[in-house]
Amino acid sequence: MIAQFSIVPLGVGVSVSDYVAKVIKIVDESGISYKLHAMGTILEGDWDEVMALIKRCRDALMEEVERVVIDIKIDDRKGAKGRIEAKVKSVEEKLGRTVKK
Amino acid sequence: MIAQFSIVPLGVGVSVSDYVAKVIKIVDESGISYKLHAMGTILEGDWDEVMALIKRCRDALMEEVERVVIDIKIDDRKGAKGRIEAKVKSVEEKLGRTVKK
Amino acid sequence: MIAQFSIVPLGVGVSVSDYVAKVIKIVDESGISYKLHAMGTILEGDWDEVMALIKRCRDALMEEVERVVIDIKIDDRKGAKGRIEAKVKSVEEKLGRTVKK
Amino acid sequence: MIAQFSIVPLGVGVSVSDYVAKVIKIVDESGISYKLHAMGTILEGDWDEVMALIKRCRDALMEEVERVVIDIKIDDRKGAKGRIEAKVKSVEEKLGRTVKK
Repeated sequence: MIAQFSIVPLGVGVSVSDYVAKVIKIVDESGISYKLHAMGTILEGDWDEVMALIKRCRDALMEEVERVVIDIKIDDRKGAKGRIEAKVKSVEEKLGRTVKK
Repeated sequence: MIAQFSIVPLGVGVSVSDYVAKVIKIVDESGISYKLHAMGTILEGDWDEVMALIKRCRDALMEEVERVVIDIKIDDRKGAKGRIEAKVKSVEEKLGRTVKK
Repeated sequence: MIAQFSIVPLGVGVSVSDYVAKVIKIVDESGISYKLHAMGTILEGDWDEVMALIKRCRDALMEEVERVVIDIKIDDRKGAKGRIEAKVKSVEEKLGRTVKK
Repeated sequence: MIAQFSIVPLGVGVSVSDYVAKVIKIVDESGISYKLHAMGTILEGDWDEVMALIKRCRDALMEEVERVVIDIKIDDRKGAKGRIEAKVKSVEEKLGRTVKK
């Protein structure tokens, strides 16, 4: 499955990129297949692997802050793999041209 | 923590309430604190309890359908409990009157 | 259509219920059909009415804060009305019993 | 502001990439600043421009399908521009290295 998530800490000021960096460090070092974009991070793996990683990110932030808001959006399709790239490519093929990505 | 989730199966037609009913049955019989509304179901419990329950709901649907889209939104605040009701009550107290809920 | 939304201001501390109260006051006084729950507010109306109201809520908060994160989730089904209550009732009918709501 | 959105049509089968392609064609031809990824499309512009474009995408799909589920997530920060790229770059600067993006 693929899953996009974002974690926003409350009570730490207007800028939260220090905390996002901490989360991305954990994701990057985990070895999971991922992609960071401006509104979240996309992970690909099975349910337990993905959810354990998001939990580790949440635990790391909750050591430092009192409250977090987490969004997770999952697209789970039987047998499908390599979808972080494949879903975008499929749209480009339908359109017959490349798009901004 | 409290978490709202919804599961939408794809490829089963325009109406998905049969599947939502199946999910709510699992939630209701689990004994967890929950509340169903028109756009999702709110759960309250610790991370592992909540996530294990959502996984069970997803597993039940994936026995019947090929693809699901799941949204999970978590509000995790240290030490806070009973928040499915308390968060709404807090807003009513600030306003000094009841609202539609 | 029905739409659930939430607005979280950043940089104003851990508790944001003062801001949620301000938003709900605007929603309540607008006369729109709505329902507040612990993770957001559900509105029912046509696209322009709903989006104009969410914009007014955002404008009111942006007078006071520097940054907001807004989530909007829309369920738009042709010809369907009264769905804030009807969607929950439909699930109860399938289950043959009431649920927590 | 920047806004991520996705539109999922119900009742049209398991694969929805034909519909996503139709949406991306509208976005691409609009001239707005955007980026497509595997879980949605990120737009940057002011409120009215972004929301009018999402409405056009929804209207185009509703000509063909009976029901859509739309997710919109907005990050609205006063005075900030060029954030589709800048938010990712800011994280890389904090980490002192590039990430997968």
